Amino acid sequence: MSKPKPGALYLSEVREQPAALRRLAAGRDGVEELASEIRARGTPTVRLVAHGSSDNAASLGVYAFSLLPRWTAMRDSISLTVYYGAELDLSGSVVLALSQSGRTPDVLEYVARSRARGAFTVAVTNDPDAELARAADAVLPLAAGPERAVAATKTYSNQVAALALLAAACAGRGAEMADACLRTADLAEQALPELESAATAAAHALAYVERMFVVGRGVGYSTAREIALKLTETCRVAADGLTATDLAHGPVAALDRRFPVWAIASHDEMLPMVQEAAARAAGAGAALVASGDAAAEIGGAAFRLPVPAAPDPLLAPLLSVLPGQLFAGALAAVKGLDPDRPIGLTKVTLAQ
Amino acid sequence: MSKPKPGALYLSEVREQPAALRRLAAGRDGVEELASEIRARGTPTVRLVAHGSSDNAASLGVYAFSLLPRWTAMRDSISLTVYYGAELDLSGSVVLALSQSGRTPDVLEYVARSRARGAFTVAVTNDPDAELARAADAVLPLAAGPERAVAATKTYSNQVAALALLAAACAGRGAEMADACLRTADLAEQALPELESAATAAAHALAYVERMFVVGRGVGYSTAREIALKLTETCRVAADGLTATDLAHGPVAALDRRFPVWAIASHDEMLPMVQEAAARAAGAGAALVASGDAAAEIGGAAFRLPVPAAPDPLLAPLLSVLPGQLFAGALAAVKGLDPDRPIGLTKVTLAQ
Repeated sequence: MSKPKPGALYLSEVREQPAALRRLAAGRDGVEELASEIRARGTPTVRLVAHGSSDNAASLGVYAFSLLPRWTAMRDSISLTVYYGAELDLSGSVVLALSQSGRTPDVLEYVARSRARGAFTVAVTNDPDAELARAADAVLPLAAGPERAVAATKTYSNQVAALALLAAACAGRGAEMADACLRTADLAEQALPELESAATAAAHALAYVERMFVVGRGVGYSTAREIALKLTETCRVAADGLTATDLAHGPVAALDRRFPVWAIASHDEMLPMVQEAAARAAGAGAALVASGDAAAEIGGAAFRLPVPAAPDPLLAPLLSVLPGQLFAGALAAVKGLDPDRPIGLTKVTLAQ
Repeated sequence: MSKPKPGALYLSEVREQPAALRRLAAGRDGVEELASEIRARGTPTVRLVAHGSSDNAASLGVYAFSLLPRWTAMRDSISLTVYYGAELDLSGSVVLALSQSGRTPDVLEYVARSRARGAFTVAVTNDPDAELARAADAVLPLAAGPERAVAATKTYSNQVAALALLAAACAGRGAEMADACLRTADLAEQALPELESAATAAAHALAYVERMFVVGRGVGYSTAREIALKLTETCRVAADGLTATDLAHGPVAALDRRFPVWAIASHDEMLPMVQEAAARAAGAGAALVASGDAAAEIGGAAFRLPVPAAPDPLLAPLLSVLPGQLFAGALAAVKGLDPDRPIGLTKVTLAQ
């Protein structure tokens, strides 16, 4: 058997995302059961805990639970509970612990401790037999299928979708969201081939890039963080995901022609803020990349990688992340790097 | 009158921090009154809202309110309330809105909306006459004195200290924390001259740096974020503040000899995690800068900028930020940049 081409696994998993999304949506009955268990507990505070890509998906979870069941939701500090032994009353909390592998050590420990302090704990994982699933009260399986590239793609998307589905089910709108997931899968499938060519062309033109800011806000913030992480881990670019507003609070001063900004623009409440940030970046001389379903609304973009509008605004990240995943894979190839095996990383991160 | 030397304001404000801290501690009676008003509301959820440096200080607030009065505390999403109109019940919430100028537009709007939804709102600002103070139920003045350099230093420190003081007062430990603030001011004052020379020497040696990760965790995370922001805005370095653990979840793959890592190490529960991250960074070939009161515990550091141990662990950020502020000022000077007036920034950021 010949040696696999660098990035072959990564690209195949990017392309597999529509299928993975359909598998997740097919498990809606389990999501509804879980939502019933959660709703039986009144009006909980939702605590999302995760690292890396999973934490980027958690950013979307904050919006989904705040906007749909209208519950307070937060990306919680793991260190407070695990290392500082904070004595919080968690009896009114639901913990959603996200870990692709189900083996992230301090996420596991957080679940054990928060459960002991009264929280209802849910393992959101791609391996329902992993330790995390055994440690939690309930499991929300990602159903993404085995992910073999070190850089996460389809598990990230299914985490985003799983959180949107669960939040919708908690608000009595699970059927609607599951249907929106299926329509999003179709849109992603149709968009992928053309996006792949466009992202590859942009990667060749931006091969010089060593530093980048990726800006989004609101629902788009998860995409900004996740694209920045893909660029950092697969292309060795110092990329930082920022809110559109935080760009103006300091980082804009660092920009120049060789320090581009990638703007995630969707037709939603945050578009004016993203447009303002992009204009400010362009004013500082930065090359602009615009993606999202409102990519056309970003003036002066050197590269545009538009995606279709999602049938539900909370699912926009499933589409807006695609250009970034594809661009990162293509840029890695241009640079002779292998996104299946980034330097110094392993699939399961056991760092505390 | 001759033109002021670039960075003169910035450096004078860094040096003024001990005095600013003493002014804040002198206002303890007001903090105690505010704490009584807050405690009268039962066990609130604390929502911190801010951008930029103020948001970095808010990171410390999450630890202070979780560990001292043992309340749930979070850096809240401004966009959810201001732009998406999330219909959350905020009657059990206390809002701490941080803005040096008291004029940050969407922080102001968040206060107006959250107050209308039942929250008790507090303006934490350096200008008690500003619009933010008028919009909120109560004011916690920073008492830092006018800050004229665009890059924030003494207002950041006083935000950190104000949050620690208020959290302590809410836990009935206000006197103890005020005393710890005064002792910290003395320690900072004693440490500053030697730190200034050491930071300047390190800045000359690291003049080539264009990309950097600054890692901390727990209480040290606010310092990591704030040093990264200072480097980005004053030195045009693409610097990202990461938790020590998140470094292993992707970003470590980007490191090399010319992509250093700055580790914030304190003798606290998080030290093993920071040591592990530093070892991983060194393994990837990155030059290491170690600061904090446990700088000596970071093996293989090319540069060490140790600070004294704080009398209270929650005040460690007041000391651990000093080497970063001084290094940023010195590196800006080496690069011919002016931290008093970073490119494209103004003192009051009116971006939405």
